[in-house]
Amino acid sequence: MRSLSIQKLIDIFSKFPTVGPRTAARFVFYLLKLPKEEIENLTNSISILKEKVKFCSFCFKAFEGGEELCEICSDPRRDKSLLCVLEKETDLLPIEKTKKYRGRYFILGGTVAKLKKEETKNLRTEELQARVENPEIREIIIAINPTPEGESTTLYLERILKPLNKKITRLGRGLPVGGELEYADEETLGSALEGRK
Amino acid sequence: MRSLSIQKLIDIFSKFPTVGPRTAARFVFYLLKLPKEEIENLTNSISILKEKVKFCSFCFKAFEGGEELCEICSDPRRDKSLLCVLEKETDLLPIEKTKKYRGRYFILGGTVAKLKKEETKNLRTEELQARVENPEIREIIIAINPTPEGESTTLYLERILKPLNKKITRLGRGLPVGGELEYADEETLGSALEGRK
Amino acid sequence: MRSLSIQKLIDIFSKFPTVGPRTAARFVFYLLKLPKEEIENLTNSISILKEKVKFCSFCFKAFEGGEELCEICSDPRRDKSLLCVLEKETDLLPIEKTKKYRGRYFILGGTVAKLKKEETKNLRTEELQARVENPEIREIIIAINPTPEGESTTLYLERILKPLNKKITRLGRGLPVGGELEYADEETLGSALEGRK
Amino acid sequence: MRSLSIQKLIDIFSKFPTVGPRTAARFVFYLLKLPKEEIENLTNSISILKEKVKFCSFCFKAFEGGEELCEICSDPRRDKSLLCVLEKETDLLPIEKTKKYRGRYFILGGTVAKLKKEETKNLRTEELQARVENPEIREIIIAINPTPEGESTTLYLERILKPLNKKITRLGRGLPVGGELEYADEETLGSALEGRK
Repeated sequence: MRSLSIQKLIDIFSKFPTVGPRTAARFVFYLLKLPKEEIENLTNSISILKEKVKFCSFCFKAFEGGEELCEICSDPRRDKSLLCVLEKETDLLPIEKTKKYRGRYFILGGTVAKLKKEETKNLRTEELQARVENPEIREIIIAINPTPEGESTTLYLERILKPLNKKITRLGRGLPVGGELEYADEETLGSALEGRK
Repeated sequence: MRSLSIQKLIDIFSKFPTVGPRTAARFVFYLLKLPKEEIENLTNSISILKEKVKFCSFCFKAFEGGEELCEICSDPRRDKSLLCVLEKETDLLPIEKTKKYRGRYFILGGTVAKLKKEETKNLRTEELQARVENPEIREIIIAINPTPEGESTTLYLERILKPLNKKITRLGRGLPVGGELEYADEETLGSALEGRK
Repeated sequence: MRSLSIQKLIDIFSKFPTVGPRTAARFVFYLLKLPKEEIENLTNSISILKEKVKFCSFCFKAFEGGEELCEICSDPRRDKSLLCVLEKETDLLPIEKTKKYRGRYFILGGTVAKLKKEETKNLRTEELQARVENPEIREIIIAINPTPEGESTTLYLERILKPLNKKITRLGRGLPVGGELEYADEETLGSALEGRK
Repeated sequence: MRSLSIQKLIDIFSKFPTVGPRTAARFVFYLLKLPKEEIENLTNSISILKEKVKFCSFCFKAFEGGEELCEICSDPRRDKSLLCVLEKETDLLPIEKTKKYRGRYFILGGTVAKLKKEETKNLRTEELQARVENPEIREIIIAINPTPEGESTTLYLERILKPLNKKITRLGRGLPVGGELEYADEETLGSALEGRK
């Protein structure tokens, strides 16, 4: 029914995160209507992505440029005593937007549901331990989602970082903006009470 | 189409919170199938509700018994220096379930979107001020939903309680259990960072 | 925590269709605020429901009055050659509202997922067979939801009514108002094509 | 915060249908992790799409090959007396999957909310009229979504095709698989009753 070129591209787009075959088909028909210059703009942008973008040797954030360190890690105004551990890079922008954090980051590269070796070896735990050993770091903020998988990852990090004798903190729990007491779970509401101010 | 008795009861149930005409109709057809004893059990339970239940003269919680004060306000083990202000009684049980609060409550009776007199007069603000004036109360926890309406109510309470020179706190903001950084608003995430521990 | 009278009524309301304990609690606090006259209006309306309302001896619809037959079955203008079989009474009003049906109804009293005897005995199948045997009935419209349970019930009715040699029809399938081809299942869309006009 | 190459690609992906900036960012980080061969596979597939794929000169469906007509329009087994008018190409596959239609298609290229000239000129109405004038076509099935915009487009097509004196049909309305009488609108249910069989 569908031409090979269309079907092949649908199959590729179907592997993109959050995309199913129906959305992938819509992407392809959208591309078919695009002018030639915009198609070239897209393919060029994809092609140079891997050439231009590299990963910071300290925090593993994606960045562009000739240096070893990204623009955050090389910024002398950032507080080098704080290290915020994130699951993935898309969690970084929301924290920067709060303007409440001026330390550096470390991107762990994933979470683990069960603490099996085949899972934990995909996390950058050795690199994290190496960063934390640096005496200038005084506090490690584990800013990983309070989901079940995030919780077990946080517990795992706390365990492997404990021997390094640094202050380890987690993000505060509480009611989010727009939340309602009546529908809050006990743990969230208990934390909101303890963290009142 | 529908008999008068059925339609009349549908109209009454349609005024119940969260109930529309379709659900109200389902309620009536459910009652039509119930055995006579269960119908009597329901109408008796509704009838004695108003006779048996009264409102605590201190916190305005519904309770049963010959006393003036509810079982919480009359419990000598509750900490009389703490007063937790709630919008409505259904917010009380979730807080009790956390087992993190041992003070007393005060049920305000509503929230206000705009601080107009015709709205604020429906809140028990005079009674609240009278409670707070008591020297044994040292902290007032305003535990009202962080929704837009709840926020404006909280601001209003803070303003009218300020002259009484007591410690006034709000529930801590933060990520709820199961929340995700990527979808958190800036204010929630900023509070979670500040409230880290 | 909650008074006995309140908890008892919450338990009763929690058995109402679509109602959980949280909504049941909201119902009770709503009743606590109602004026005495409205409470009495509610309990009286519930009490007389069973006295006043009875079920039509032909179609089993609820109705009020001294007669044996409901206002539809006793209406001489209704077409006695048509019989529309419904799962439950709340399905009747939507059909009347279309003004496209002028026959009589028969309320089956439920659906069956599996055709086991303990299930099918709760349906009014014997009464239905008796109605259909009447020579004045020429067409039986099985108007039961096209859900999996409704489908197996429809198949069952078709099987037991077949020996009576009457015309048996089902509601037409097709795209509903507001539906979209892209999200329609094959059976719905196939029926919409076949039923084009 | 984000590198130029990343931000540029996020901006491009954000214009894809159904994609917002957050999903676009996830696409880019997904691409950053892909092996080089898969990136090349993607860009090649996009590049050759426009070269390989063209639009059928009869029905405007996308297809591949040296001919003028797509594989459906050139298939001698398709019934040339039937023409099914579709809003967009993604509506074609669902109809083919029903296996209930063996005629040809015509892709209109959009719908119109209001029948203003600047809107209707984007539809292929002149091409449609030319197709319908062909004496071999006996029935035009307007298979456009029964949404408000689809309805006004259908009415518009019926008006401009009427002078050609061909049979014009619409998809049948009715209850979809899984639908429920209680929640059906009057028009859908009325059509389901009229289309019973």
